[in-house]
Amino acid sequence: MNISEIGKFALLDRLNTGFEARQQSTVKAFDDAAVIATSDKQKQICSVILLEGIHFNLVYTPVKHLGYKAVAHAVSKIVAMNALPQQILVAVGVSMRFDVLDVEALYEGIRAACSEYGIDLVENNLTASLTGMTISVTAVGEASADSLCYKSGAKVNDLVCISGSLGAAYMGLQVLERERRIFESNHTQPKLEGYDYILQKQLRPQARLDMLKTFEDNGIKPSSMTNIVDGLASDILHICKQSETGVRLYIEKIPIASETFEVCEEMNFDAVTAALNGGDDFELLFTLPVTEYEAIKSLSGFEIIGYITDASQGAYLITPEGNELKIKAQGWTSVTE
Amino acid sequence: MNISEIGKFALLDRLNTGFEARQQSTVKAFDDAAVIATSDKQKQICSVILLEGIHFNLVYTPVKHLGYKAVAHAVSKIVAMNALPQQILVAVGVSMRFDVLDVEALYEGIRAACSEYGIDLVENNLTASLTGMTISVTAVGEASADSLCYKSGAKVNDLVCISGSLGAAYMGLQVLERERRIFESNHTQPKLEGYDYILQKQLRPQARLDMLKTFEDNGIKPSSMTNIVDGLASDILHICKQSETGVRLYIEKIPIASETFEVCEEMNFDAVTAALNGGDDFELLFTLPVTEYEAIKSLSGFEIIGYITDASQGAYLITPEGNELKIKAQGWTSVTE
Repeated sequence: MNISEIGKFALLDRLNTGFEARQQSTVKAFDDAAVIATSDKQKQICSVILLEGIHFNLVYTPVKHLGYKAVAHAVSKIVAMNALPQQILVAVGVSMRFDVLDVEALYEGIRAACSEYGIDLVENNLTASLTGMTISVTAVGEASADSLCYKSGAKVNDLVCISGSLGAAYMGLQVLERERRIFESNHTQPKLEGYDYILQKQLRPQARLDMLKTFEDNGIKPSSMTNIVDGLASDILHICKQSETGVRLYIEKIPIASETFEVCEEMNFDAVTAALNGGDDFELLFTLPVTEYEAIKSLSGFEIIGYITDASQGAYLITPEGNELKIKAQGWTSVTE
Repeated sequence: MNISEIGKFALLDRLNTGFEARQQSTVKAFDDAAVIATSDKQKQICSVILLEGIHFNLVYTPVKHLGYKAVAHAVSKIVAMNALPQQILVAVGVSMRFDVLDVEALYEGIRAACSEYGIDLVENNLTASLTGMTISVTAVGEASADSLCYKSGAKVNDLVCISGSLGAAYMGLQVLERERRIFESNHTQPKLEGYDYILQKQLRPQARLDMLKTFEDNGIKPSSMTNIVDGLASDILHICKQSETGVRLYIEKIPIASETFEVCEEMNFDAVTAALNGGDDFELLFTLPVTEYEAIKSLSGFEIIGYITDASQGAYLITPEGNELKIKAQGWTSVTE
């Protein structure tokens, strides 16, 4: 059934089902605004917007995965504040080329993410769109004031850490794009076998909610934190700028999965560049006081990749040979934006 | 300067200036998520998404007005909860056809609305877009639990009230569309003189924040409330559905401005249809217990247009002759969506 046949409100009624209320603080959903109870804690709110043709290509992105990823993206930003995600608000624009089944698949993914992260959908807007699909997700989290981690808290000598491997999401995108081009030129069926890890990181990435537990269980509070969306280079520069510091990152310490190295070799692409500029990994990038080193050195789940310096010393990568390369942010035209 | 030349983060730095912090509860802006202090009150959160070609046409919409209207729209939804708007989050997608000046004009409007409504911008995302402009605004408000007005609170015999005239925004759109067609066919300059009122209602509508003061000053608490976005017909049906009631609305009581009647006559368009289905007026539609009639009958600023009935009696318009017409919602393809 085409979405023009069912009508906006009937479709909304259908899409709004199957979302359980999981959060005590959710007072009212699906009114003009959502109502969220407050406590002695603080609320964190962020939003992400995903546009067809810029942030995703429906030729190779299953719509269900897209719904999941949009939620994971917003949740990831709340997690990057060291806060617990609790609610989301969703607004979707769809052009008339979409079938009701497409829209329902999108919400299946949104539902799966709500279940995975234990959060409530509290507002849902649907709108017509002229040319494609647009997804906007707003996430709300909660934390006590003293547990929050800003980008601005890094101090000289802090250790720079990362919660998982980088560059995989970007290389997953490269494989999907390559197969799309091949298919479009000679209708050869895409070969996606053997790329499971990087495709998973691109199509169904996870917000690192689990890291909050690692921090809590070990009494760790990062001095600053953000999530890798624009790529390690851009995101560490954000921390340096907000914290008014410099940084040294050791290239050989940047975690890159063997699957990512393999596909980089196959596609003649530099793996470090993928890790630095790829983005969309949703891993946490954070800094820890060097005094915590003894407490954390035996912990698994993250890698120490460098240290914070005085601002006057700039932001540099250190090569295995000991050379220093200035860290540069990606420009406007980044593939994953 | 084209936006591709300046770079995303440099442009964001420029756009983020000039927003004063007005709200005590704004703890942190422009981090991964905004941080908002809580109190014994509750938070209300809503979002709106505006897509070029669906919600606005840049041929006749000044970008500055568009920025203002997008904020007014989100603020209007918080006001419809009987809550005070305090913060907004903005995400804008722009294609490479836009100049930096266009984007800056958009934020001039956003800045003007923040100033008008006394609210803080706490997050701002920019993204590339393939084909046009996309604007997403999330608004956050605050209210005590017992002052909130849901759509679901209307009771049998409650009076149905409206805060101002309807249909003007829609007729403003019709005039703009007519002049666009004339211009495109023979390059005749648009004639927009004399349409100030309806054009203002379309291009620079106001959220009715002032009504909250009217309610407070007179000790009034609506039993239910929403704002007119989809048109009176759709919006009263939402209240009836949520409240499990019916309604009777008197056609001759629906407030329609003389300017709206005049342009309807000129364009051979039914003014009541414009009021019922036009949408985008951002006026408040609310219900009051009939016991409040004595207290409110001398108040200006809103009109009583009907009363709530039992659900079994359905939702009907009453003509001046006493005939009953079933109220029907607009479908998916509503012009203003």
